[in-house]
Amino acid sequence: MLAPARAAAFRGLSGRVSRVAPAAASSFSTLSIDNLPQNVINCEYAVRGAVVIKAEELGKKLAAGKEKLPFEDIIPCNIGNPQAVGQAPLKFHRQVLACLTEPSLADEEGLFPEDVRERAKKYLEGIKDGRLGAYSHSKGHPVFRQEVANFLTERDGVETDTEDIMLTDGASPAVKMVLQMAIRDGNDGVMLPIPQYPLYSATLALLGGQTVPYYLDEEKGWGVSMEELKRSVSEFRASGGNPRGIVCINPGNPTGQVLSRDDMEMVLKFADEEGLMVCADEVYQDNVYADGKEFISFRKLAIELGVKVEVFSFHSISKGVMGECGLRGGFVHCHNVDPQVIEQMYKLASICLCSNTLGQAMMASVLSPPPLGGPSRAAYDAEKKAIFDSLKRKSKMVTERLNAIDGISCQPVEGAMYAFPKVVIKGYVMKKAISLATPADGVYCMEMVDKTGVVCVPGSGFHQKPGTFHFRMTILPTEEALGGKGGVLDRIEKFHKEHPDGWFA
Amino acid sequence: MLAPARAAAFRGLSGRVSRVAPAAASSFSTLSIDNLPQNVINCEYAVRGAVVIKAEELGKKLAAGKEKLPFEDIIPCNIGNPQAVGQAPLKFHRQVLACLTEPSLADEEGLFPEDVRERAKKYLEGIKDGRLGAYSHSKGHPVFRQEVANFLTERDGVETDTEDIMLTDGASPAVKMVLQMAIRDGNDGVMLPIPQYPLYSATLALLGGQTVPYYLDEEKGWGVSMEELKRSVSEFRASGGNPRGIVCINPGNPTGQVLSRDDMEMVLKFADEEGLMVCADEVYQDNVYADGKEFISFRKLAIELGVKVEVFSFHSISKGVMGECGLRGGFVHCHNVDPQVIEQMYKLASICLCSNTLGQAMMASVLSPPPLGGPSRAAYDAEKKAIFDSLKRKSKMVTERLNAIDGISCQPVEGAMYAFPKVVIKGYVMKKAISLATPADGVYCMEMVDKTGVVCVPGSGFHQKPGTFHFRMTILPTEEALGGKGGVLDRIEKFHKEHPDGWFA
Repeated sequence: MLAPARAAAFRGLSGRVSRVAPAAASSFSTLSIDNLPQNVINCEYAVRGAVVIKAEELGKKLAAGKEKLPFEDIIPCNIGNPQAVGQAPLKFHRQVLACLTEPSLADEEGLFPEDVRERAKKYLEGIKDGRLGAYSHSKGHPVFRQEVANFLTERDGVETDTEDIMLTDGASPAVKMVLQMAIRDGNDGVMLPIPQYPLYSATLALLGGQTVPYYLDEEKGWGVSMEELKRSVSEFRASGGNPRGIVCINPGNPTGQVLSRDDMEMVLKFADEEGLMVCADEVYQDNVYADGKEFISFRKLAIELGVKVEVFSFHSISKGVMGECGLRGGFVHCHNVDPQVIEQMYKLASICLCSNTLGQAMMASVLSPPPLGGPSRAAYDAEKKAIFDSLKRKSKMVTERLNAIDGISCQPVEGAMYAFPKVVIKGYVMKKAISLATPADGVYCMEMVDKTGVVCVPGSGFHQKPGTFHFRMTILPTEEALGGKGGVLDRIEKFHKEHPDGWFA
Repeated sequence: MLAPARAAAFRGLSGRVSRVAPAAASSFSTLSIDNLPQNVINCEYAVRGAVVIKAEELGKKLAAGKEKLPFEDIIPCNIGNPQAVGQAPLKFHRQVLACLTEPSLADEEGLFPEDVRERAKKYLEGIKDGRLGAYSHSKGHPVFRQEVANFLTERDGVETDTEDIMLTDGASPAVKMVLQMAIRDGNDGVMLPIPQYPLYSATLALLGGQTVPYYLDEEKGWGVSMEELKRSVSEFRASGGNPRGIVCINPGNPTGQVLSRDDMEMVLKFADEEGLMVCADEVYQDNVYADGKEFISFRKLAIELGVKVEVFSFHSISKGVMGECGLRGGFVHCHNVDPQVIEQMYKLASICLCSNTLGQAMMASVLSPPPLGGPSRAAYDAEKKAIFDSLKRKSKMVTERLNAIDGISCQPVEGAMYAFPKVVIKGYVMKKAISLATPADGVYCMEMVDKTGVVCVPGSGFHQKPGTFHFRMTILPTEEALGGKGGVLDRIEKFHKEHPDGWFA
């Protein structure tokens, strides 16, 4: 939602159009905030909400340099956006993409390594003489879908059909499309883990469907219990709702856990019994840091268990160690889905023609490393290892440092890119929240950015167990920026210690 | 919609998954064609519909080479996809994009012209040290929005605020977002020109809103009349509907006309009186071929007339002479739109984070040619001129050749990329249509691809005046492929002549 101050600033802008007077509010004859669709108003997406808008304003003040702020830089920890905080892209894939963009580069001797040129030529051949600028098949170029299929076949030990794969502009549009297939009216709902990534609740709101919450058990490392699953679905059914699916985010966002095989089996059997499709958000599948934990795909387990549920699984180029968020590449794989339903998804995709072809190419490329023994491989492995090892160290450091702060407790960051600590909020911040009738972690995060420049997202933006407060922070800034003197963790520690009073006078 | 034969083929596939038996229809526990949302089923998108699926099948047969077909190649005329039929991308912009993808190329001496490197460095600096792989602002990187704003300021002679611009993955998602703001319930509707580009009717169906048709006057070169606008809106109101907006596609798709200033003034005054937002689909603004015709933007005219309507205008990198369909870049500009409404659009955009950054960069770049006198400019101008001049020749040739066929009449292709001829359908094809209870132009186009390899889209896919039949064909294949011996026009001529009987026995 729009911060009131910003709305006012917007409304008051003058001189934006030189030849017409600034329009008065009454002149907006058709669309106004009072007559927009309720579903649009209802949907919330906290990851880019009020705290981030505040951070933008502070950033502008810092840049202007006229006002003294209590910090020297804004550190964004609100969003899993690795390259925004300094992570370099993997060279090999970018070189391949450059050749696709300007095919003459693939012929240039000595510019790029031989394996880059070979990969690029394979893709250019696959998309027919470099027609990167043409609309592809609405599911994505077959050559790129084949790379995805090969990866899934290898990962799951099960043959994979390219017809079951749709390439999309990141995982988010794929999730939206699948949820769109499920929601027929206001009685339909989809079970979401709480806390959840707000793409899900926002999309359900926009579609006019219901969020059916099942709470993850924080004390058991954000695990799942059958009791809670059953409570959730039976209460929803009792209220007249039709449950249509269940979402699992593994590794967890915002919660950072890696689900155990037992928990996953429980979900799959439950979904099978209840007739629910499973939406498996597996975009963090390469981000598992905890010793003894491993990623298992829901699709593979569903086949092993012999359950007949539909499993839609999502993947992306934005996470892992590539972090290519800006290029927008992703896919959904449809396991055990009625081909007629896939045809309807294809029809929906075709309305916007296709996903961007460079994102498609990147999705394919990141699933297929440069060849062993080739000129790019050693450097490639080293780049990946450096990024992964750093993430692993940061996952431990953030967990330990947060737990060392009195009034903050944090489940281990086993995977993904986030810590989701529980905070005890007191004094001034709590009073302000009560007086504003707003969630206390919202005020907490707003004050945090205002006083420290650290941008986190309030736990309420992800939904949480009533009466608890959390915030989500990424582990993505550099180790120095996170854990060094005056870094994120120092700032959070100082802020938390002083938040009940003093500092805010 | 899915062709029944294809659905059956899909369902019958076996051995797709090695370790599980093929699922029987009854095993799809949650989603099946019978229980999908009605809005999903209702939406239709003919541009990639049954005729195109048929063409894909024929293409596979041709490639396999086992069966003799009555043609040697498939010529896609179904979609405005220039690079798919041989148009080369403009070099300058691709070179800039290659540098953004792999920034070291901008430092490489002698590889690309100096103005390419300067442009790339400007953009890299603008997106902060080459963070192309980071999510941008959900409206798009400010540096790219600024380029768009400069273009609009120059084009319309009116200062343009970057806050009113949102960069999107092509124009289609922008259209969907704006229509989403308008449709609250099943009584809301948006006036669409008939014939229309089916993105509009499909999106309205998906949102559960109503298409409110206003018919273009074919005999007056697909012009607009006030009488028809008033008939349309008053009938809709009388039926209990709430009209929320009016769409204009100029130059026209599928109709190829360039609206006169008089027609545009009529629409704007009508929208002002009726309290309707105007959606101006101006993606073909650079594709005006007819002598004496010029493109005028709805926004510019709205300001000149002093009407207070909201004008959402859409543009894209997919058309013009660049034809960069695959990269997915576009924007919507919001004129006289309540800033609180724009904030809601921003919120919706933020759910999927941002549009792809290379598409954003291309959108910016194509609106800003290489500098005059620089090393790239002369070749750039020559590339553009060659493409444009060829399109212009083809627009005339297609119009003339179609009108020379007995039983086909075609309004002049003044702009855009399409001819939309009216056809008299007879004999065998008409009988088959009656027996299948399907629009005759659907059968006509299906038979046309089957007998000639030419892929067109039935007029019924765009909606049309009842009792008339049309098809849409692009003018994009090469002049030789279109007008040469055995080319598209030869094939259509032969097909049309023989369609009532003989050939199909």
